[in-house]
Amino acid sequence: MELYDRIEHYLTEKLYPFWFARMAAPEGGFTTYFDKNGNHTGQTDKTIIQQTRSIFMLSHALRNGYGGERAHALLEPGLDWFLRTFQDSERDGWLWIVDKAGRPVSTDKIMYGQSFVIYSMSECALATGNMRARETAEHTFDLLQKYATDTAFGGYREMFLRDWSPRPSGVYGGDRKSFDVHMHLMEAYTTLYELTHLEIHRRKLREVIDVLWARMMHTPTWTGVAQFALDFTPLPAIIFKTVWGSDRDNAGDPRPLNNTSYGHNIEFFWLFLHALEVLKEDPAPWKQRLSDLASHTVRYGVDKELGGLFVEGPYDGPARDVQKEFWQQAEALVGFLDAYLFFEDPVYAEAFRKVFDFVWNKVINHQVGEWFALLDKSGNVLWDYLGHAWKNNYHTTRSMVQTLERLKKIERKGLSI
Amino acid sequence: MELYDRIEHYLTEKLYPFWFARMAAPEGGFTTYFDKNGNHTGQTDKTIIQQTRSIFMLSHALRNGYGGERAHALLEPGLDWFLRTFQDSERDGWLWIVDKAGRPVSTDKIMYGQSFVIYSMSECALATGNMRARETAEHTFDLLQKYATDTAFGGYREMFLRDWSPRPSGVYGGDRKSFDVHMHLMEAYTTLYELTHLEIHRRKLREVIDVLWARMMHTPTWTGVAQFALDFTPLPAIIFKTVWGSDRDNAGDPRPLNNTSYGHNIEFFWLFLHALEVLKEDPAPWKQRLSDLASHTVRYGVDKELGGLFVEGPYDGPARDVQKEFWQQAEALVGFLDAYLFFEDPVYAEAFRKVFDFVWNKVINHQVGEWFALLDKSGNVLWDYLGHAWKNNYHTTRSMVQTLERLKKIERKGLSI
Repeated sequence: MELYDRIEHYLTEKLYPFWFARMAAPEGGFTTYFDKNGNHTGQTDKTIIQQTRSIFMLSHALRNGYGGERAHALLEPGLDWFLRTFQDSERDGWLWIVDKAGRPVSTDKIMYGQSFVIYSMSECALATGNMRARETAEHTFDLLQKYATDTAFGGYREMFLRDWSPRPSGVYGGDRKSFDVHMHLMEAYTTLYELTHLEIHRRKLREVIDVLWARMMHTPTWTGVAQFALDFTPLPAIIFKTVWGSDRDNAGDPRPLNNTSYGHNIEFFWLFLHALEVLKEDPAPWKQRLSDLASHTVRYGVDKELGGLFVEGPYDGPARDVQKEFWQQAEALVGFLDAYLFFEDPVYAEAFRKVFDFVWNKVINHQVGEWFALLDKSGNVLWDYLGHAWKNNYHTTRSMVQTLERLKKIERKGLSI
Repeated sequence: MELYDRIEHYLTEKLYPFWFARMAAPEGGFTTYFDKNGNHTGQTDKTIIQQTRSIFMLSHALRNGYGGERAHALLEPGLDWFLRTFQDSERDGWLWIVDKAGRPVSTDKIMYGQSFVIYSMSECALATGNMRARETAEHTFDLLQKYATDTAFGGYREMFLRDWSPRPSGVYGGDRKSFDVHMHLMEAYTTLYELTHLEIHRRKLREVIDVLWARMMHTPTWTGVAQFALDFTPLPAIIFKTVWGSDRDNAGDPRPLNNTSYGHNIEFFWLFLHALEVLKEDPAPWKQRLSDLASHTVRYGVDKELGGLFVEGPYDGPARDVQKEFWQQAEALVGFLDAYLFFEDPVYAEAFRKVFDFVWNKVINHQVGEWFALLDKSGNVLWDYLGHAWKNNYHTTRSMVQTLERLKKIERKGLSI
């Protein structure tokens, strides 16, 4: 298939080589700070997200037959450095940011980061059989059960101080829950269960799935609600005061309550189907809800005219934020192919094409290899860096690997794309 | 005060001596199998409830100035034997029943028992400074956070197989929650927090309190609902198929849905006030609810004519089961004195008297020392054994110690009783 070959060539000849050549930081660990030309920006802080996503990227490559010796050679010392540097020797769990010398910069325990430890370590153990990675995944899971579960209302608290006491309320996030973090817990527990097949990992995966569907979705659209009070009362989403080690915006008014993220919705769509697959559960009972979710994403999220996926908008009308950010495009490619495979409705093949063409023609910096961070509706680049503390290698490489996987399935099924 | 002296004399000269003379099992651990004359019945199975309650009894005595060398001498080898025998070397946590030789008879992980490990070990560490007891309490707490929390709905699952996978549904209890077990978790976490003052123990204590008040009470009576589905839908209470190592009834039709236990309600009343005291929280905001609960117990639970506390009945009418079981009397003594101290309403002093006189004249086997297990409405003894696997020393001795405590407070406050 021309499309398959084109993407595989891009992944193996451009995207992976971009990272393989640049990601090893001379001082240890991984770096992901690259400008539009792929030159290192000079920033040296290391974030848990950047490190765990790099470990995931290499492990995911290896599990899917990419990277070979090169990926192994990068993974081993990077994993070792991460475990040595980021584990909090005082209060257990994982630091948020360290400096060039590996000294703590931000010691808060942020669930978003803790969940990526579980995800990346599980993927690493599946790819390489590394027992330290497996033990780390299991131990981090145990820590979250002790310190982060909300035994009053269910689900998890998301933001803690170094000693695992909740951060203050409001912008510090200590009294909020989010669709985003619970989705990433589902993602992490899926791969953990795939690794261990332990009942407790299965059970907690099932429970976080229950929370997502029963407490965190808007009905009848079955799309995600961004933020909640601890008792799952929906709240207008705010930006939390968390050091991201980047220029990610962290100010501004709360979002309207009538607001959903197309990117999170379509990412949830495929991560949930993947979870069911790992759980060996039949997706048929979920068909109507999933159809509601996916068709909402196509209807309001896809730019039919110019291609690509918008950022967000109300549950019941056209998009409000029509910029196009890299990660939503990456997740939409996988999600729409999954929707096409599940429903066999050409509307999803068409949605995939709309997003793919935008990615290929506007988002990817073909000369250098990675994707730009943010574009406007028309495809003009607004944030042109290729890598940063939180914009790095997990969404783009996983998207390409998973897209190829699904294109193969589509061909086997005899569907046209 | 005549009453104080009478109870203190009974506690120190009759009740404690009854146990001190009999509780050390020759083969190790504690025995609590005694007939109406205080003779050993010959039964030798050891249950987790019997062992942990015996450890609690001795520790509670020591913390309150009773027992001295005798209690120390019993506690040390009994604790050692329990830790050696009941800890599940295969799957961690605590066995339910072992035989005379210490071999597992029932390996299910029952939360009722696990919570008594936390309670008794915390009390033991507070009484003696024993570090193994403290570590055991903290480790068992951690295990429950990992294996027993319900992260979908909040609260805890209550019945597991040896490997901590939930037992089957229905009579095996794997899909039910109960007021009883959550109350005992509150009791255990209160003493654990009193011991450690760790934030995570405080937080989980607060959360189980939230679950009890928000999900497990009947409104507007603010009395307890016995059993629930995992999502806290009230269900007619059933007797679970759990080996109690005793003749406790475990068959029969479900209870009606309109049914509440006076004993659990009044036990919850004082355990909750004690939790607030340990948390250093003001009880004033709870005054109306607590008044509703306590006055319901007086109105329908107390036998004004013959004295004593009935077993159970509907939320909105007279008692249905008018037998009088030992433990409800024990808890009512403490609860009504607490209600008297809190509200300063003589109705609670009168309720205390009604129960106390029944206990003194009918329930206590003064010749031998302990209380009979079950009496009919008029005070005729139905089950005459003084000790069994689950009817042992925790309710009766704690009741006497806590009653004395409260009588002192009542005297200091200048109230009459």
